[in-house]
Amino acid sequence: MNTDIFQQLASRASVRKFTSAAVPYDLLERLLAAAMQAPNTGNMQQYSVVISADEEQKAALAPAHFSQPAATGCAAMLTFCVDFNRFEHWCRISDATPGYNNFQAFLWGVIDTVIFAQQFNTLAENAGLGCCYLGTTTYNASDIARILDLPNRVVPVVTLAVGYPASAPQMSDRLPASAIIHREKYHHYTDDDIRECYAAKEALEESSRFVAENGKKSLAQVFTDVRYPESANSQFSAIYLDMIEKCGFNLSSH
Amino acid sequence: MNTDIFQQLASRASVRKFTSAAVPYDLLERLLAAAMQAPNTGNMQQYSVVISADEEQKAALAPAHFSQPAATGCAAMLTFCVDFNRFEHWCRISDATPGYNNFQAFLWGVIDTVIFAQQFNTLAENAGLGCCYLGTTTYNASDIARILDLPNRVVPVVTLAVGYPASAPQMSDRLPASAIIHREKYHHYTDDDIRECYAAKEALEESSRFVAENGKKSLAQVFTDVRYPESANSQFSAIYLDMIEKCGFNLSSH
Repeated sequence: MNTDIFQQLASRASVRKFTSAAVPYDLLERLLAAAMQAPNTGNMQQYSVVISADEEQKAALAPAHFSQPAATGCAAMLTFCVDFNRFEHWCRISDATPGYNNFQAFLWGVIDTVIFAQQFNTLAENAGLGCCYLGTTTYNASDIARILDLPNRVVPVVTLAVGYPASAPQMSDRLPASAIIHREKYHHYTDDDIRECYAAKEALEESSRFVAENGKKSLAQVFTDVRYPESANSQFSAIYLDMIEKCGFNLSSH
Repeated sequence: MNTDIFQQLASRASVRKFTSAAVPYDLLERLLAAAMQAPNTGNMQQYSVVISADEEQKAALAPAHFSQPAATGCAAMLTFCVDFNRFEHWCRISDATPGYNNFQAFLWGVIDTVIFAQQFNTLAENAGLGCCYLGTTTYNASDIARILDLPNRVVPVVTLAVGYPASAPQMSDRLPASAIIHREKYHHYTDDDIRECYAAKEALEESSRFVAENGKKSLAQVFTDVRYPESANSQFSAIYLDMIEKCGFNLSSH
């Protein structure tokens, strides 16, 4: 085991503040080419990535990411997309009839796109870059598609904001490993088990601050009422599902 | 840049044949704990992993993976699942009302689960283990859920078969990086561009063999007619969508 690799991954942290230093296309493309060696379904590679390093393009994309500091301050945004356009074009000129309008195809596309993005993330952090996923990608995907001039059959899934870190990032807390890992069968939690899973998180100083600042009674309420409320989740679900369907994927079961 | 990390990721390959050596829970759990430091949505960690190393459990799971050699011959299968059960249980005992029955929540769960799995994959390969994703997980997810005793709100997404490699794995081909990477805006392909993207793949000796063995006219037809045909994609889409809906996620846009 190379302990450097273990240490890098075990102690990694997301970076949301960057210096003004540019990151050359060449470096990003060399890292992306290496990341492409990540596993993917049937070696079909039904994904694409668009690098936005141009100031005008970054400014155009920022509102789709609610102008969060990681989006406005990064050297480049990399939008990773499910891409059936390239593969189906190949099918059409090869006398083959593709059958990828369905949920399975969309989902394996998502899985492969995310594996590719995360492999790039690891390589970028190893190269001294900082990265931050922008979860807003699935909220405003059709705006992003328009700005990046994506054709039909291409759907944005995740975006990584990339740049040189302005300062050493802080590792964030995680649940105890025992809360996530199950041996042989799923461990069915009692109320006490659950309290134990979340005890350390609830005891953090920042958790008490979030609860107080938002006038809530519990940390869980900060998630359900403020950060990820049902109303926003439902609204953005409808928008994204609509876009995916317009891109030709049938996501209904009937 | 640590060139060892770059080299490991740039030259990685999946492993489908394993020695009979066991892989201790302790090692897997240490790697999984480090992988948990991977980024995730809002630090909610809505995922679980079930380790199946017991011979009886592996034998029970194998048919769900069509008894492919990587499944029957591995030391352990790790099933990575979207898990809203733990988080919503925490909400219930914290006077909070979760709003995660929708597509956005399911999808960020999938993204986070896959990032976690891929980070484990990198750590496992670094520890001398071989890994192979079993794409069959989304085909027979309800069988897998029954065998692993998964509660409602927990959905299998990807499985990694893990073990010590029986031999050095062969790297597989990839499309040229220029086929995947776009600068600033999507590159709209001409027919000639597409031919160039796939030329090296079509020229591989194994590609000619696949075409000949299956009596097809093109490599693309091997994918569309034999390996990933519309009939199977549609059938398994309906099964998986049905399971996800039974787990309480509403995936319709209306």
